[in-house]
Amino acid sequence: MRDFSQSNDWLSVNTATVRKSRGQDLPLTDIIEACVRRDIQVISPWRDQVAAVGLNTVSRLVKKYNLKLSGYCRGGMFPAATVAGIQAADADNRQAVDEACELNANCLVLVVGGLPGALAGQAVHKNIAHARDQVLEGIEKLLFYAKSCHMPLAIEPLHPMYAADRACINTLEQALDVCDQLDPGQSGALGVAVDVYHVWWDPKLQQQIERAGQSRLLAFHVCDWLTPTRDLLNDRGMMGDGVIDIPKIRSWVEAQGFQGFSEVEIFSTENWWQKDHSEVLDTCIARHRSVV
Amino acid sequence: MRDFSQSNDWLSVNTATVRKSRGQDLPLTDIIEACVRRDIQVISPWRDQVAAVGLNTVSRLVKKYNLKLSGYCRGGMFPAATVAGIQAADADNRQAVDEACELNANCLVLVVGGLPGALAGQAVHKNIAHARDQVLEGIEKLLFYAKSCHMPLAIEPLHPMYAADRACINTLEQALDVCDQLDPGQSGALGVAVDVYHVWWDPKLQQQIERAGQSRLLAFHVCDWLTPTRDLLNDRGMMGDGVIDIPKIRSWVEAQGFQGFSEVEIFSTENWWQKDHSEVLDTCIARHRSVV
Repeated sequence: MRDFSQSNDWLSVNTATVRKSRGQDLPLTDIIEACVRRDIQVISPWRDQVAAVGLNTVSRLVKKYNLKLSGYCRGGMFPAATVAGIQAADADNRQAVDEACELNANCLVLVVGGLPGALAGQAVHKNIAHARDQVLEGIEKLLFYAKSCHMPLAIEPLHPMYAADRACINTLEQALDVCDQLDPGQSGALGVAVDVYHVWWDPKLQQQIERAGQSRLLAFHVCDWLTPTRDLLNDRGMMGDGVIDIPKIRSWVEAQGFQGFSEVEIFSTENWWQKDHSEVLDTCIARHRSVV
Repeated sequence: MRDFSQSNDWLSVNTATVRKSRGQDLPLTDIIEACVRRDIQVISPWRDQVAAVGLNTVSRLVKKYNLKLSGYCRGGMFPAATVAGIQAADADNRQAVDEACELNANCLVLVVGGLPGALAGQAVHKNIAHARDQVLEGIEKLLFYAKSCHMPLAIEPLHPMYAADRACINTLEQALDVCDQLDPGQSGALGVAVDVYHVWWDPKLQQQIERAGQSRLLAFHVCDWLTPTRDLLNDRGMMGDGVIDIPKIRSWVEAQGFQGFSEVEIFSTENWWQKDHSEVLDTCIARHRSVV
């Protein structure tokens, strides 16, 4: 297993981790400058953060500082209740691919969506199998486009507690079933993002990481599961503060030949987003070196 | 599929559902009287509620009203950090079997436990595989005793969001693997409790219900998954208020020959526990007849 203790070489910061500083929105341009000052050379930005300062601005900074993107967050949200909704999602996803290409991201991360309407609090129907069919169809269409742009798509299985409103792909096994169906040749164009927060509990995790193999392990995300967890979405822990055996999971991923970045992605309304981003980034670096 | 619309014959009320009335603790004796007044003939009580009024008192009421118990909540919590802790859990679980026998319950429900210390906020270790080994050993020991008392044990796979602190058996597949290992002959002494709240998201749910078959389907619990869910533990919804297609899951269970009760189990600090228990029980009856 790689030694992370001496450098930031394999550290990536998902920019949602410092989306807020002292409770206030922090522009992506400031986040990038703060990362560069700390010799963090890899980031994974969110589309809304990019849009807020402009794609061209971000692209210029990425080139200026020779930054890498471990991923781009995010495409997906495929299921919809109407044909127009499906078409809008498809168009938006193609645009996400274009942006990922402009920023030279390693992959576009897919949070595939759940029951239409559920994220707004009122699901249009309860047929999760149908939503899953729409996800499969949506990825199939997007994959055709993404391949033409040479942008790999990384399906991120989300924790089952998000099955209704955010992603109805909820285990690595299920994500790999989709990969097998849509890219049986393991071309590298379609794979998975393994986020320890979403999959740590899975009794089949090691087995499915082995099944994925190097060609399908496109991204590795870290944070920690707190006990208690006070909010389903925004109470993620800093690595080392929770119960996830992160080094063990990393060892499984690296045993398959994964040599990519370890991307820190923490949503934390009450804790980390209340601190100054300098402290958060410094802590990310320290924990990356000591407990990942 | 059975027609629930005309009677309470297949309705069971898990007494945690009316643990509080208008925010105040409601004694199990009052709960039982309120159920009997509404022609609810089946309950599933919790041990702490039984202990609060006395096992003999509850036993007398059960016999007086000819009540049935769809289950008894709960045994489990097997993992521990010390030999003494393991032994204490084993002794407590044997006592739970004895109480279930005294009340003539259909089964003892097992919430198997997670990482030692996690429920109190500080896990002693992060080795969930070890916790799972301890669960297997604990069930094996308890099964020997429970068989001698003719009390079936129902492993309840809990939603993965409880993997750290409440139960490290998190899918029906995983629970059935334990059943296969400890009771390969499918004697009926060991099976599962299928709670829609915990398993509704699982893409392998139908397949695993079919795998379970009648001999291992010992209990069926209902409530609903709300969007948004505001608390990991105590924000369960009333059937019909969330996104779970309950009739579909019931159809899968009944297709295997399950003819047991449909047990309503709702934990709801901010909503249902704030209402008068009369309204809650009346709503359980109405929803049991209309949307389960």
